[in-house]
Amino acid sequence: MSSTFKSEKKSALNYLNQIKEIVGPENVLIDPERIIDYSHDESTQTEWPRLPEVVVTPTSTQEVASLMKFAFEAEIPVTPRGGGTGLSGGCIPLKGGIVLSLEKMNRILQVDLANQMASVEAGVTLGELIQAAEEAGLAFPPHPGDESAQIGGLIATNAGGSRAVKYGGIRNYVRGLEVVLPSGEILHLGGKIVKSSSGYNLMHLFIGSEGTLGIITQAIIQLLPAPALCRSLVIPYDDLEKAIETVPAIIQAKILPLAIEFMEKDVINITEEYLKKTWPSRIGQTDLLIILEASDEDELDRLSQKVADVCLNRGALDILVADTSSKQQQILEIRSKIYEAIKPVTVEILDIALPRSEISAHVRRVKEIESEVSLWLPTFGHAGDGNVHTHITKVYRQGNQLVQLEESIWKEKAARVKKMIYEDGLSRGGVLSGEHGIGVIKKAEFLQFTETAQLEFMRQIKKIFDPKGILNPGKILD
Amino acid sequence: MSSTFKSEKKSALNYLNQIKEIVGPENVLIDPERIIDYSHDESTQTEWPRLPEVVVTPTSTQEVASLMKFAFEAEIPVTPRGGGTGLSGGCIPLKGGIVLSLEKMNRILQVDLANQMASVEAGVTLGELIQAAEEAGLAFPPHPGDESAQIGGLIATNAGGSRAVKYGGIRNYVRGLEVVLPSGEILHLGGKIVKSSSGYNLMHLFIGSEGTLGIITQAIIQLLPAPALCRSLVIPYDDLEKAIETVPAIIQAKILPLAIEFMEKDVINITEEYLKKTWPSRIGQTDLLIILEASDEDELDRLSQKVADVCLNRGALDILVADTSSKQQQILEIRSKIYEAIKPVTVEILDIALPRSEISAHVRRVKEIESEVSLWLPTFGHAGDGNVHTHITKVYRQGNQLVQLEESIWKEKAARVKKMIYEDGLSRGGVLSGEHGIGVIKKAEFLQFTETAQLEFMRQIKKIFDPKGILNPGKILD
Repeated sequence: MSSTFKSEKKSALNYLNQIKEIVGPENVLIDPERIIDYSHDESTQTEWPRLPEVVVTPTSTQEVASLMKFAFEAEIPVTPRGGGTGLSGGCIPLKGGIVLSLEKMNRILQVDLANQMASVEAGVTLGELIQAAEEAGLAFPPHPGDESAQIGGLIATNAGGSRAVKYGGIRNYVRGLEVVLPSGEILHLGGKIVKSSSGYNLMHLFIGSEGTLGIITQAIIQLLPAPALCRSLVIPYDDLEKAIETVPAIIQAKILPLAIEFMEKDVINITEEYLKKTWPSRIGQTDLLIILEASDEDELDRLSQKVADVCLNRGALDILVADTSSKQQQILEIRSKIYEAIKPVTVEILDIALPRSEISAHVRRVKEIESEVSLWLPTFGHAGDGNVHTHITKVYRQGNQLVQLEESIWKEKAARVKKMIYEDGLSRGGVLSGEHGIGVIKKAEFLQFTETAQLEFMRQIKKIFDPKGILNPGKILD
Repeated sequence: MSSTFKSEKKSALNYLNQIKEIVGPENVLIDPERIIDYSHDESTQTEWPRLPEVVVTPTSTQEVASLMKFAFEAEIPVTPRGGGTGLSGGCIPLKGGIVLSLEKMNRILQVDLANQMASVEAGVTLGELIQAAEEAGLAFPPHPGDESAQIGGLIATNAGGSRAVKYGGIRNYVRGLEVVLPSGEILHLGGKIVKSSSGYNLMHLFIGSEGTLGIITQAIIQLLPAPALCRSLVIPYDDLEKAIETVPAIIQAKILPLAIEFMEKDVINITEEYLKKTWPSRIGQTDLLIILEASDEDELDRLSQKVADVCLNRGALDILVADTSSKQQQILEIRSKIYEAIKPVTVEILDIALPRSEISAHVRRVKEIESEVSLWLPTFGHAGDGNVHTHITKVYRQGNQLVQLEESIWKEKAARVKKMIYEDGLSRGGVLSGEHGIGVIKKAEFLQFTETAQLEFMRQIKKIFDPKGILNPGKILD
């Protein structure tokens, strides 16, 4: 590469032929109608989406490595992209350049029965992994996000999901990674091993680094023996706090559900309407959704009874059991589609993770802010693991109606509310993001609320792996 | 600090008054008879132990920070030390200077019932943590080492232990860390949270960094609901490989024991004699020790039956059940003291972690090497998680006798054998250390067998946190 090239504007379009040579012309997109799909993720903020200049869809690690080597030399920004289901703008190509989509690296390389691990390319979706595990008589029980999310993206975000109460985030399941660095070098980290104490753990550094240190091209994922039986309980309360205060009591009663979610009736109702489906409980203001898991029906009965005892002792109005698979599906679908239903009025989803003991007081404070500022702040999430998703919206509530605010007004209110909620959450020992990542959307607050020394070390780590700053620029710290 | 000072030999003894001022004279030792205890760990290699010049025992994070700031300025080497139970020489003060022992920072700050977490100073021992958890009606079920090991050291080594099959290594239980850096800066990482996706995870970088990046002064540790019931099964086989080959079959039968250990009768016999205790099985060549855990006796019966079926189908000679607490204790004591019993003849303990499916073939190769080279290589360990501890010795076996070799002979054989075993283990997808760490003892092989690019990144990371190289010099990469 001549230095004349380097001093030109670093536009990927100037290098189109070279790019096509590396990945093949069939894996290079520049058509505006197609590349627009690569300009955003599932977040609602309208100010961030950016068109890439070129989208490439390499089909092998070697192609990713060659492309990165080329981009590194030419100093072209590269933004890696998984399923695009993120909520923090992590895959938005803020500096244009190349979007490197892993979508065609979607092979399940092996499901290894003896070691109970799957070796997969980064573009395999969560749904495909779950299915492959089941077909092999095994299971991948954590459910860290949308099933169209890709494994590489889930690992890059250290995704969590509602089952993290019992199973933890995806970090716990990553045994090995293949990573392509900005320079084009390939690292092989971990392996089909469950223990390692062999030098600094670079693998854990890449987990949650949001595609800013390297591109995950393959992963070895721990599977578990085939799933046990599940049962969902819907437990209505007349009061949000009473519902949430039950959660530590359940854990202290030595019950470890698969999931403990809380949600208020207003968002349930909106989602029922949106999906034309029916939620089992019509009474009360807030419901807990508790999913139990056990090896047989007797054990499920025993656990259900214990949960019912704890909840009824703490003010639950009823215990509704989804004992058929179709009822269970209906409940889970409504839960998983709440965001979709309220997305049109959502400005930002917060993702604060707090000590479990602090959720109740934090949510009480959110409700105070809601009425102080007159902005609807539907708040739900993973009560079992302290991860609260307050949705900052553009509307306020008048009785059962949601009333749209003018843009200048909701913008001002949203900014104010966000600051107040973060101050409360962080003062309770919380962190900014439990599972969505920092991306670009949470960057300003991340820089504001993180210890200066930590930020400085993170910057130096970024510089080690990406000395030219070409990989996923503008994210986390940059 | 004047530059004349700096250019003197960087002896800690030149600064004794300053050191006493920082931590108090009662926390500074220089008496040779006392500091000799800080010159080694539990490894057997005679070439590594070094006397420190000064041992300090600070009583607070602030004292650790002040001492590090001082040592950083004066460029005095500092080697942090926990319980000294390590097996890789990680706490040996290779460059003299200061040994910073955390032994007096041994307070359990809190056992938080609502969040089921303990906040502890780094010098709390594993035994003390287990006891505090139990007193609070909770449990700390993983058992990553000797009970006199200290939490800070366990985290710094990413210790594993025999229960990692079910519970994983200590990494899975660390929720928060307070770390003092070489510069004296204090970092607060994580917290009482179970999920975080908030920037690069520095906490996981410190876990397993063997005190070379910073000094762990406090930790927040996840506890679990109170322990279930345990039952130990001793299962003799006439053949080592048959025993090990049973292990994947147990896991595939969807049984997840607390521990699956394998050990040959010769080491059991030596340990019985050493402890004057009796192991339950007298038949066969190799035993599996399987510890089951369940919430009640019925479930334990059911699991025991399943394990028995799998094992008897695969050539087990008998199934011996330790159904009383005292029998159970006796078995576990013998298992845990094997190392002590054979320590006098041990040159080095290997700690290779392999894919579970590869253990059998690897151990077969070790046995081949044993007879090829004529050196006794007792091999036992954590069959359930693929962590194999081959002990390289100074003796060979003649019938039931162990015959001592001359030093020049065992040294040559030990070096040859080690190379052969690593080559086999690593070619099977293994790593050098599953749970003991690299320290100084495994450094040469670590540098030889690790991807060059990974080593380079680790070196750069070391440089970020410890630019003057004063912290635990000579370890891992240095």
